[in-house]
Amino acid sequence: MTPFSFRLRHTDAGARLGEITTARGVIATPAFMPVGTAGTVKAIYTDQLKAAGVEVVLANTYHLMLRPGAERVARLGGLHAFMRWERPILTDSGGFQVMSLAKLRKITEEGVAFQSHIDGSRHQLSPERAVEIQCLLGSDIQMQLDECVGLPASHDALAAAVDRSLAWARRAQRAFLAKRADGDAHVGQELFGIVQGGTHRDLRARSVDGLIDLGFAGYAVGGLAVGEPQQAMLETLEGTLPRLPTEKPRYLMGVGTPLDLIEAVARGVDMFDCVLPTRSGRHGQAFTWGGKLNLRNAVHSEDRAPLDRSSQCLAAREYSRAYLHHLVKAEEYLAAMLLSWANVAFYQELMAAMRRAIAEGRFAAWAAATKAALA
Amino acid sequence: MTPFSFRLRHTDAGARLGEITTARGVIATPAFMPVGTAGTVKAIYTDQLKAAGVEVVLANTYHLMLRPGAERVARLGGLHAFMRWERPILTDSGGFQVMSLAKLRKITEEGVAFQSHIDGSRHQLSPERAVEIQCLLGSDIQMQLDECVGLPASHDALAAAVDRSLAWARRAQRAFLAKRADGDAHVGQELFGIVQGGTHRDLRARSVDGLIDLGFAGYAVGGLAVGEPQQAMLETLEGTLPRLPTEKPRYLMGVGTPLDLIEAVARGVDMFDCVLPTRSGRHGQAFTWGGKLNLRNAVHSEDRAPLDRSSQCLAAREYSRAYLHHLVKAEEYLAAMLLSWANVAFYQELMAAMRRAIAEGRFAAWAAATKAALA
Repeated sequence: MTPFSFRLRHTDAGARLGEITTARGVIATPAFMPVGTAGTVKAIYTDQLKAAGVEVVLANTYHLMLRPGAERVARLGGLHAFMRWERPILTDSGGFQVMSLAKLRKITEEGVAFQSHIDGSRHQLSPERAVEIQCLLGSDIQMQLDECVGLPASHDALAAAVDRSLAWARRAQRAFLAKRADGDAHVGQELFGIVQGGTHRDLRARSVDGLIDLGFAGYAVGGLAVGEPQQAMLETLEGTLPRLPTEKPRYLMGVGTPLDLIEAVARGVDMFDCVLPTRSGRHGQAFTWGGKLNLRNAVHSEDRAPLDRSSQCLAAREYSRAYLHHLVKAEEYLAAMLLSWANVAFYQELMAAMRRAIAEGRFAAWAAATKAALA
Repeated sequence: MTPFSFRLRHTDAGARLGEITTARGVIATPAFMPVGTAGTVKAIYTDQLKAAGVEVVLANTYHLMLRPGAERVARLGGLHAFMRWERPILTDSGGFQVMSLAKLRKITEEGVAFQSHIDGSRHQLSPERAVEIQCLLGSDIQMQLDECVGLPASHDALAAAVDRSLAWARRAQRAFLAKRADGDAHVGQELFGIVQGGTHRDLRARSVDGLIDLGFAGYAVGGLAVGEPQQAMLETLEGTLPRLPTEKPRYLMGVGTPLDLIEAVARGVDMFDCVLPTRSGRHGQAFTWGGKLNLRNAVHSEDRAPLDRSSQCLAAREYSRAYLHHLVKAEEYLAAMLLSWANVAFYQELMAAMRRAIAEGRFAAWAAATKAALA
């Protein structure tokens, strides 16, 4: 298999055009990863993802370890075969979801003990177990277990989370290299470190420096998009990204709206994931080049226009807004199916447009015009 | 447009091979119509229906008159354009659903007044209004408004329903011919009469004779599959179908399981509709040539086999039972999507197999072997 690599092809102001090569294919960056929480990007066929240009999806370790279980997925041939998606997969470490979903969680230096939100069963997640699970799933990019603190939080609490996350990064790396030595991590599989530190520049710097000392194939910025204003997120990126090595991919976790993506790309982010396009689709909302539409709104009830005549996506091009409005009101499966599909396709079009603008050295002008159209 | 016609191509014992020609395409019979209640066959794309060989779908007048409304569908270009399905559509009259879903319904000789189950709004349905709605929807085959009585019911109650349904058939026909004369029914559009009478041979005969006197382009058998044993349904068919003209299509409404379809085809039925393949799909059940599977069952949790390797349907051929089991347990949209799709494809394969067996004069042997495999 091909080893993992990242190539920075071009920069335009702060925006970066690049290419991640994995064993399962190339990912053009900046890239947006649709979220396939439980081994399926909700309401979308993998063939539709591919046709929309999706090159990598994210899957959630927390959900998959609970159901169907990582060992079961491994026995079934790994997550790619299981969910019928042969392109790259990034898995998170499970830490964020343990914090937000699990019951009765207890964090110690060793790791986190928690009860499943599904059936109350007891589980443990440590830096080593998170790596083991992600090897069993067979994802192409793994994330270290980190401690993600919700904002607002005190400087002390955030500092403690930075130090714990760094200690866990070291243990995750050791565990990952052992797996690789044992042949349990496939060639091309890599582990990313996660920068924590809230919106404090000093803590982000401490986190980055510690991770760089360890050396990772890529660096994620975690602990953002957890309730802070967009401006605070962007300032944190401005204080954090310049400290990261230029030759490694940078992944902003859990972000975001189309405007968030444009601003973050302008500041040098290469990768994103977010449930927004799919979750919004299930709630009757459509992202378009003219801004967000709420299809539940009666204004669409007799509108024969599609979401976007120029889209390559059937869902956006071939179905009237009136029909989508009807499907949303009637709570039909097809409403979630069509709108999730159209939204994922729109996010891919947005990323492709950003990549073209960077390649052609006109990102700032493109961003200004697009932000005005989307707002 | 092409006028409506039915051609009986071949018979084998009691089974009939035929062809219905409509303005929007040919329907090979015996045919199964998936149910697209609210203008969508739940959780299935119309492209998937076409690829599965579906040549006609049923849509429910009751649901569509309430939401989005027949006049609105007409303003939007008709139901075919609205739901992006250019092949034939059969609409029911709404009568059955008024009985089963609406609130505070009141039946008089004039028609039925009821309250919407969605928002409590008041509506009326008469034989004339049912025709008008179906003309607005633009379906290719309309059904007369009938009075469908749940079983068990007294002979008197059933006799009254037969007489009322005949009176309504006459009014529906008059209304339909007026619409046609006015150009409000498109060329090729036709109206079917509905035979009522419960499981009473005398009442069915009275109903058939009355309808034949009026003369319809096709005849439906209604009021079955409403709780009676299969044997009672089949005996009723045996007492009813031979009285119908051989040169007109015969439609058994709301039926049924694969075994029901085989038995009914053996007795001369040409058309069916039923929510079973889609509703079962939403409940984790799959129809296969080896019988029905409940994917919720733990026996499937590590089964890498697909539902049916030999199927032409991706959903049946390309996804493991283990994955389907997982999706059902996780209540993912994709569970309903894949199983509904696979089930609709199976029903089409079943009908195609019946048509081949009839054409080749081996229906009885095929039916015996298939019933044994499916049971």
